[in-house]
Amino acid sequence: MSPVPLAVYGLSELRTALLRKDMLQAVEQALISHSEGRVVAPPPGVLLFEDPPGDCHIKSGYVRGGSVFVVKLAMGFYENPSRGLETNNGLVLVFDSHTGKTLAVLNDEGWLTSWRTAAAGALAAKAGAPSQVTALGIIGSGHQAQLQARWACELLGIKQVFIWGRRFDKAQRLAKSLVHQGLDAQAADSVEAVFAQCNVVITCTPSAQMIVPSAVVKAGTHIVALGADSPGKQELDPHLLKRARVIMTDDHAQCVDHGEMGHAVRAGLITEDADISLGRVLAGQVRGRFSDDDLTIADLTGLAAQDVALATLAVERIQALN
Amino acid sequence: MSPVPLAVYGLSELRTALLRKDMLQAVEQALISHSEGRVVAPPPGVLLFEDPPGDCHIKSGYVRGGSVFVVKLAMGFYENPSRGLETNNGLVLVFDSHTGKTLAVLNDEGWLTSWRTAAAGALAAKAGAPSQVTALGIIGSGHQAQLQARWACELLGIKQVFIWGRRFDKAQRLAKSLVHQGLDAQAADSVEAVFAQCNVVITCTPSAQMIVPSAVVKAGTHIVALGADSPGKQELDPHLLKRARVIMTDDHAQCVDHGEMGHAVRAGLITEDADISLGRVLAGQVRGRFSDDDLTIADLTGLAAQDVALATLAVERIQALN
Repeated sequence: MSPVPLAVYGLSELRTALLRKDMLQAVEQALISHSEGRVVAPPPGVLLFEDPPGDCHIKSGYVRGGSVFVVKLAMGFYENPSRGLETNNGLVLVFDSHTGKTLAVLNDEGWLTSWRTAAAGALAAKAGAPSQVTALGIIGSGHQAQLQARWACELLGIKQVFIWGRRFDKAQRLAKSLVHQGLDAQAADSVEAVFAQCNVVITCTPSAQMIVPSAVVKAGTHIVALGADSPGKQELDPHLLKRARVIMTDDHAQCVDHGEMGHAVRAGLITEDADISLGRVLAGQVRGRFSDDDLTIADLTGLAAQDVALATLAVERIQALN
Repeated sequence: MSPVPLAVYGLSELRTALLRKDMLQAVEQALISHSEGRVVAPPPGVLLFEDPPGDCHIKSGYVRGGSVFVVKLAMGFYENPSRGLETNNGLVLVFDSHTGKTLAVLNDEGWLTSWRTAAAGALAAKAGAPSQVTALGIIGSGHQAQLQARWACELLGIKQVFIWGRRFDKAQRLAKSLVHQGLDAQAADSVEAVFAQCNVVITCTPSAQMIVPSAVVKAGTHIVALGADSPGKQELDPHLLKRARVIMTDDHAQCVDHGEMGHAVRAGLITEDADISLGRVLAGQVRGRFSDDDLTIADLTGLAAQDVALATLAVERIQALN
């Protein structure tokens, strides 16, 4: 047999092929499929490095009945910035789920993960938003904060954003870049100030301890917590989960293990069955909010289903373009 | 940042870059490194498919102090032959272990795995061979049988090979092709006939039950068992392990879990500490054989270290050629 040529697509091809509205739709469908138990995703693998410190996370999965399976490699090497390199890197491999044939290598440099997270955050923001959104709050000022502001504002149909970051100058810089993109964005000087102005707030920091005290959050707020994607991370005061009328999780087991929900369960503030599935809310099977006075929380830890959805979409669109 | 071009190498480049003697040396060093505890390799992941039946095994690892880490994907889709496709397929990814940067995608179609297995088999054959090898026996007539015959004959410096396969015509075809390659090869009509002629025998079948009864094996024989690479497989009568003066394993835990050793331990014929490490034999730290009358067995289940070794070698050699 002669060697099979391998289709490799880079970031510019992915940017051309993937439209935001298609990604939102694909990730919404993925969250629903996941909630219906139609996603096969074994426990992720991880390779750890000591000198220099780094990690390689290996996730894989497929949707039953789908045409592809996906293996995603996500690398983090924490001394890279001192070498002038990005900390994170990644590669997504797409295979035919009927033959095992390699369909494509997506050399996405980690962007598919950023986009699928942004899409889930925006969808979760909408799933629990009150009928009138005053403004969007963003806790965090990094790469994901920028994406969240843009995707969620677009999906919620609003323009006003308040941003708090540990470093005020970074939050200001982010606000400025969002203004350039047509949003009415400004940096806030405290977490409290964000929650005073906004009734939908997305938290997207790598924090290892709570940064949103329960006292600053008023009734009628919807919080989307994205930061706690692995053990040891936390953004919300666990009392917020006790106060919440609705807790939506992307995956029950993951959120109990290492999401915001886990902290509240371990503190004895809520029981393990306190959550409903975000996918079921998106499917219209259960309600994400009952009244405009509800405090609601979406706890997101990230799903292989989201990776599968975007990789599938990318391969379909790129093949259609070629 | 602009997209990073991805280096993809196919089978023809791998064949040009990898010389058999270099592969043997690299795999020998890998087995030694593994026995010294210098290899980091998390438990493999597996994705299973039902319709059509298939699997994708994900292995990863690195040698401490080395320059790369490796992720290997090995696919088996069992209805592929009916579609005119190979059952097995694979892809090996090589990354810089200091930065996480992708160094190369080796589109090897599963050949690196075949070669690393052939190398380990040949090295294990030599590690326990009596001082005078009468002839090499091969139990099995597939792809790996062909490689084992060639690699082991070369390393042992012999020409005579006896082959038994479940299908005599397949064994004959293999013998014929080996004759074309300069070996004195013939098909044997029974397992007993192979063991009557040969004092080094390599078993490389996908058998799920023993095919080598203890009674056909005389003292002074060295057996290398390669077939039992996952739970449920077996080639040797477990009484052979009880009779053996030396049992060498590539990895103690794997062999106790799903190698030939596991069958003998579970049958109460040997204790769990009955083996020595093949890597330590290759390093000259322990003896693989004490006298020409010993019955010795090497039990191989396959190591991530072997994959790392060949992938590292491939990338080094290809980069040196370019």
